[in-house]
Amino acid sequence: MLVLNVDTMNPNVKRIEYAVRGPIVQRAVQIEKELKEGVKKPFTEVIKANIGDAHAMGQKPITFFRQVIALCAYPDLLEDDKFPEDAKNRARRILQACGGGSLGETPLVIRQDVAKYIEKRDSGIPSNPDDIYLSTGASDAIVTMLKLLTSGEGKTRTGVMISIPQYPLYSAALAELAAVQISYYLDEDKCWSLDVNELRRAVKAAREHCNPRALCIINPGNPTGQVQNRQCIEDVIRFAAEEHLFLMADEVYQDNVYMEGCQFHSFKKVLFEMGSEYSSVVELASFHSTSKCYMGECGFRGGYMEVINMDPDVKLQLTKLVSVQLCPSIPGQALLDLVVNPPQPDEPSYATFIKERTANLHILSEKAKMTEQVLNTVPGIHCNPVQGAMYTFPRLTLPEKAINAAKEQEQAPDMFYCMKLLEEMGICLVPGSGFGQRDGTYHFRMTILPATEKLKIVLEKIREFHKRFTEEFS
Amino acid sequence: MLVLNVDTMNPNVKRIEYAVRGPIVQRAVQIEKELKEGVKKPFTEVIKANIGDAHAMGQKPITFFRQVIALCAYPDLLEDDKFPEDAKNRARRILQACGGGSLGETPLVIRQDVAKYIEKRDSGIPSNPDDIYLSTGASDAIVTMLKLLTSGEGKTRTGVMISIPQYPLYSAALAELAAVQISYYLDEDKCWSLDVNELRRAVKAAREHCNPRALCIINPGNPTGQVQNRQCIEDVIRFAAEEHLFLMADEVYQDNVYMEGCQFHSFKKVLFEMGSEYSSVVELASFHSTSKCYMGECGFRGGYMEVINMDPDVKLQLTKLVSVQLCPSIPGQALLDLVVNPPQPDEPSYATFIKERTANLHILSEKAKMTEQVLNTVPGIHCNPVQGAMYTFPRLTLPEKAINAAKEQEQAPDMFYCMKLLEEMGICLVPGSGFGQRDGTYHFRMTILPATEKLKIVLEKIREFHKRFTEEFS
Repeated sequence: MLVLNVDTMNPNVKRIEYAVRGPIVQRAVQIEKELKEGVKKPFTEVIKANIGDAHAMGQKPITFFRQVIALCAYPDLLEDDKFPEDAKNRARRILQACGGGSLGETPLVIRQDVAKYIEKRDSGIPSNPDDIYLSTGASDAIVTMLKLLTSGEGKTRTGVMISIPQYPLYSAALAELAAVQISYYLDEDKCWSLDVNELRRAVKAAREHCNPRALCIINPGNPTGQVQNRQCIEDVIRFAAEEHLFLMADEVYQDNVYMEGCQFHSFKKVLFEMGSEYSSVVELASFHSTSKCYMGECGFRGGYMEVINMDPDVKLQLTKLVSVQLCPSIPGQALLDLVVNPPQPDEPSYATFIKERTANLHILSEKAKMTEQVLNTVPGIHCNPVQGAMYTFPRLTLPEKAINAAKEQEQAPDMFYCMKLLEEMGICLVPGSGFGQRDGTYHFRMTILPATEKLKIVLEKIREFHKRFTEEFS
Repeated sequence: MLVLNVDTMNPNVKRIEYAVRGPIVQRAVQIEKELKEGVKKPFTEVIKANIGDAHAMGQKPITFFRQVIALCAYPDLLEDDKFPEDAKNRARRILQACGGGSLGETPLVIRQDVAKYIEKRDSGIPSNPDDIYLSTGASDAIVTMLKLLTSGEGKTRTGVMISIPQYPLYSAALAELAAVQISYYLDEDKCWSLDVNELRRAVKAAREHCNPRALCIINPGNPTGQVQNRQCIEDVIRFAAEEHLFLMADEVYQDNVYMEGCQFHSFKKVLFEMGSEYSSVVELASFHSTSKCYMGECGFRGGYMEVINMDPDVKLQLTKLVSVQLCPSIPGQALLDLVVNPPQPDEPSYATFIKERTANLHILSEKAKMTEQVLNTVPGIHCNPVQGAMYTFPRLTLPEKAINAAKEQEQAPDMFYCMKLLEEMGICLVPGSGFGQRDGTYHFRMTILPATEKLKIVLEKIREFHKRFTEEFS
């Protein structure tokens, strides 16, 4: 008998589900191995559209960012004529801010740069560097906030409101913390918009069995791709104030807005524009990261959160908690600093930077439109506009026979669908059941990240597969 | 009333104590600010000997490592003649292993390189890449293992044995997980060695009120600097087998052995050399990191753990848990790969690499000796030999009047001592009370990392201060 086995291990860890890298991805890796070993398949490569890692799908890094990182890592390059002066200046500034001129300790100037970035983004609404906490990507900070918020037992246990569909980091963290998940449903018929009446319904029901204390919003939305309008954000803030909820705004896709007429509004800005009746009382943590937007630097694990109206004593506790976990990686911190303090118009790297940033966002925008257009030509697939972020979460009409076949294999029907899609077409998507959906509805999440030519293939293959699948089970 | 305040926040987080970056360090930062603002002090700079960050204290990074990181970050440099061919080859290999030729996804070859490194270190005892989990420094992996091990309520709650003195990451993680800390004392009179009879005493007492399930060892020791001999490790392994405990071996200082006659023995190697009676049953996780040894790359947050005899179902759960937290930063993973796969004798960078590594370790070794010698000349300070790691934890004889004065200020006596040392001399150390010590004994932890000339100043200032302090309170 082992000391540590599935019966004796932490039961909260067992309850975690994480579809984004779940069984379907494991099978995809296996199929890739089989292809390499010469096993014959109806396709020659697996195309993965399951995770939001832009570089892994071929997007090129921003030149300036990588130049500065290389200069910081190996300062001998500061003597090299091939690097532009602004990149060298930025590297010198970061190195100087570090202890010992090396990448060894947290540079304090970064929080100041983050605060300036937020002020500029939010039309001058002040941001205080003491409200900024650097993090190892946004996930780390989100888990830390949920951890701080969790307390109580039984009916007083902390409940946290999360959207359905959601990004499964949230449900996983709540399971691990044994906090209560309070699900509110986004309205698929209205482009996955958030309806405050649904928030009211959910919180009222939850008050029967737990203590709702926080409301999480992902905007632009993952996996839904919706972008919230200003009115909706105001309604949410009013709701949080009325119901005495701590607001957590996951805004990692803030530059990823594609749809005409849509615009990113930060919760912080809207909160302050609503006047001190709200801005002096509503507690807010907002999250950002280097992993998404035009930069897509997932591998550096850089991020930050800004906290508004947080109890000063809790801030001390937060600082302590963050110290135990030690600082985020210094390359990640350096990259974050470049994101919030990019080349300026009078600097030599500006033109290239703007060209690369614009090109990355333009391509994503085109792919967002193409994805919606092609999927909506398939009978049995309904796809809302991809207003922002990097995903679509289309709805599938599945034949009764397919649903029964899935049940016989003890699989969710959309898992059954995605697994067959993988085996027959080599396309790796994540079933909607991994993100949550209304009972009796079926979806998949697909990233819009594959290179344009590959994305066309993916969409064509889905069209072909869906037709065949529907016929097979009719 | 705020939603989140010290009364409503997570009580486990409140219970965490973390002295290494506690009040004394906060005061040191404040004093540095005051010095900058022109406030007169009896010293001109604060010398920090509180954290084990070698680069922050002036140690230079290994050239080869930083060259490869720069090449990976900005692959245009692969065309640059100034970089040696082996650095370029290493960078190409890492980039190729990553998705899309960028730093965006976990390179699988790294686990294979780690396994090869362990095999070589352990004289050929096999290591399986499937037993290797990469981590964000060692801390991350240690917390993950403690998390997996924690379950039960009341008398069945998981208990974890940790040494006193300890590195406070352990007590902090146990507090956060609400697991039971089982303290066993190291023997200061025998160079901080570990005595199995003390383990027996501690586990027996603990069985009255919790379920002891794991035993944590730090070797070489932090904060004690002791290096365990082979016999001791065998005894510990036998004890773990008898008492049915999961072994956690924190071996991040495995290259930091200075004392003649001392040698690093990995728990894994000793376990396998004890024969299958032990090697087939004892569950072991061992931890390593890029932050210590000759490289000192704290800022990259690279690390790994190797698990032995772990239940395959638990490994699946561990993989899931690690996936939710997302991968460690890719620069950290790349750096780890270089540490486990450094330049080889037939490669152009080998000579420089060996020169730099040897120099770093030689200087540390000299500083270890100097620290012990100087401190032991001070009446009222007793310092065990710094056999390894990067710290000394000397014992202080404090006058009764000083102890009473501290009590009046509601401070631990060694906190009182260290705070005065900081205010009067500008030396920042961490009081022994932050690491745990036998009641009625007083210590501080000091790193041996300041540059040799600075370390001399630190030691002289401590000598002067201790004399003055003793006189003042006699």
